[in-house]
Amino acid sequence: MNEFELIARLTKSLPTNENVLAGTGDDCAVLDFGGDKLFLFKTDAIVEGIHFTKETPPEKIGHKALARCLSDIAAMAGTPSAALVTIGLSKNFDAEFIAKIYDGMSAVAKKFNVAIVGGETTTNPERIFISITLLGTVARGKQILRGGAKIGDAIFVTGELGGSIAEKHLDFEPRIAEANWLAEHFAIHAMIDLSDGLAGDLRHILNASNVGAEILKSAIPISREAKLAAKKSSTAKPAFVAALTDGEDFELLFTIASKDAVKLLDGWKKKFPKLRLSCIGKIVSGDSITIRDKSGSHKFNAHGYVHFA
Amino acid sequence: MNEFELIARLTKSLPTNENVLAGTGDDCAVLDFGGDKLFLFKTDAIVEGIHFTKETPPEKIGHKALARCLSDIAAMAGTPSAALVTIGLSKNFDAEFIAKIYDGMSAVAKKFNVAIVGGETTTNPERIFISITLLGTVARGKQILRGGAKIGDAIFVTGELGGSIAEKHLDFEPRIAEANWLAEHFAIHAMIDLSDGLAGDLRHILNASNVGAEILKSAIPISREAKLAAKKSSTAKPAFVAALTDGEDFELLFTIASKDAVKLLDGWKKKFPKLRLSCIGKIVSGDSITIRDKSGSHKFNAHGYVHFA
Repeated sequence: MNEFELIARLTKSLPTNENVLAGTGDDCAVLDFGGDKLFLFKTDAIVEGIHFTKETPPEKIGHKALARCLSDIAAMAGTPSAALVTIGLSKNFDAEFIAKIYDGMSAVAKKFNVAIVGGETTTNPERIFISITLLGTVARGKQILRGGAKIGDAIFVTGELGGSIAEKHLDFEPRIAEANWLAEHFAIHAMIDLSDGLAGDLRHILNASNVGAEILKSAIPISREAKLAAKKSSTAKPAFVAALTDGEDFELLFTIASKDAVKLLDGWKKKFPKLRLSCIGKIVSGDSITIRDKSGSHKFNAHGYVHFA
Repeated sequence: MNEFELIARLTKSLPTNENVLAGTGDDCAVLDFGGDKLFLFKTDAIVEGIHFTKETPPEKIGHKALARCLSDIAAMAGTPSAALVTIGLSKNFDAEFIAKIYDGMSAVAKKFNVAIVGGETTTNPERIFISITLLGTVARGKQILRGGAKIGDAIFVTGELGGSIAEKHLDFEPRIAEANWLAEHFAIHAMIDLSDGLAGDLRHILNASNVGAEILKSAIPISREAKLAAKKSSTAKPAFVAALTDGEDFELLFTIASKDAVKLLDGWKKKFPKLRLSCIGKIVSGDSITIRDKSGSHKFNAHGYVHFA
């Protein structure tokens, strides 16, 4: 049993109950306890040596740990409320370092009116392990899932993609306000936050919605960092491939009826003049991702790696 | 900064918001989103080499991981609903072992109608790290906190205490049904679940309630395992000290007006004939724990260790 088979087995027959509207397989679980609000429930973990190092500024570790969960609440158009923080402390931990991790976490919590209501401190001798759970709410019927994309929808993405590892993965801004504005003013059909990379996360929307996508290569918003990295080395991936496949952009990817696209772009420019919004393609029938450029259409494989002939 | 100073610093100035009725410092956080239900929010973690070993039966690891959180929901007289599970997988993890951990978790989840609605799988190279967050509910006004004990209250404890390490710490039964029955039929003033040991957890109630306690030594329900361990070795702690200070009993400790004590004991015997309920003493003024035996009264120190003259 490899890791993918394991996760498939673990998530196949999990117990459920009458409160569950959506369990595994979306950005957050959606829970219904009656009343006018639904509850969004999400956990995420970062581990020293995997997601950060001893050299990472501790405030940014704290920021990242909580902001990752905030980004998932954003992807459902929710409002975050309360977080629990578990920290596994390594042997001979540096208390000032840990305290600064909490400072970074508290700063982003305050910014988004999230309460940190407790947690657990335990021992994990070899490395720091941080697990955060976030509870949020969304007005009943206003939650945006991954499975609502329709053939003909326009596909939009916020910000610029790729090269997040240079810095953005540590200090990105969760798109809570943007997602709430979208949900309030438009019928967004499907949404996800970009953690695995544009191609991989688009794949999640397509699978959940049983549709395919056609992406216009020239419309992909490529970050300056991705362009710089591509220029630096002849072995680096091309910038547009980085924009498609680099992880941890934490931007919003969503689909909307194409008739609403112009109105959306107009409204967005007024509301969020500093944040780019790009229409990168459209939802089509089938189940594949194709990339169009001047030379024609090219297929993406299932894992998100580009195979251009 | 040592670990206690660190935790004090970490929890001192955590951000809060309008949803928080109780944050750190009780068994669960209590959250208010309007409506007739309050939300109970709790996280707990267990780590290989600390809370279990490679030799521990994996189903029992899963049971313990979730049941610890269930016990905290019980301590507030709540009803558990949904759990998120984060697991840090060690290098070369044994997939069957992990799958069996989930089986144990799923079994106890089903028993208490808890949905497992997702989680996170990540890497923690040296050891398995399991963090679980549980969301529950309690009818508004029915939550039982630690801070409500009143002078003159009778102090009760369920089950038998001490020696949990022999087996019970792995397969204990969270007292959800018992706590709900108590809250429904009696005015319970304060309640906690026993994770740190009777003396340590009683101390939490006393501190939160600004009172002291007098415990009758002969009334402490001592487990068979604690008695056996004490007999086995002349250096082992006396059985009643084990009952006072061993951790992980996961029984309920609560206080109730002494006028209700007899009615409670009668009702309990009918409802839960197989589970012992003991009145072990009373709440008094002051802030200390005293133990009474034939020779008189003895003071307990602040950390729960017994100092008998």
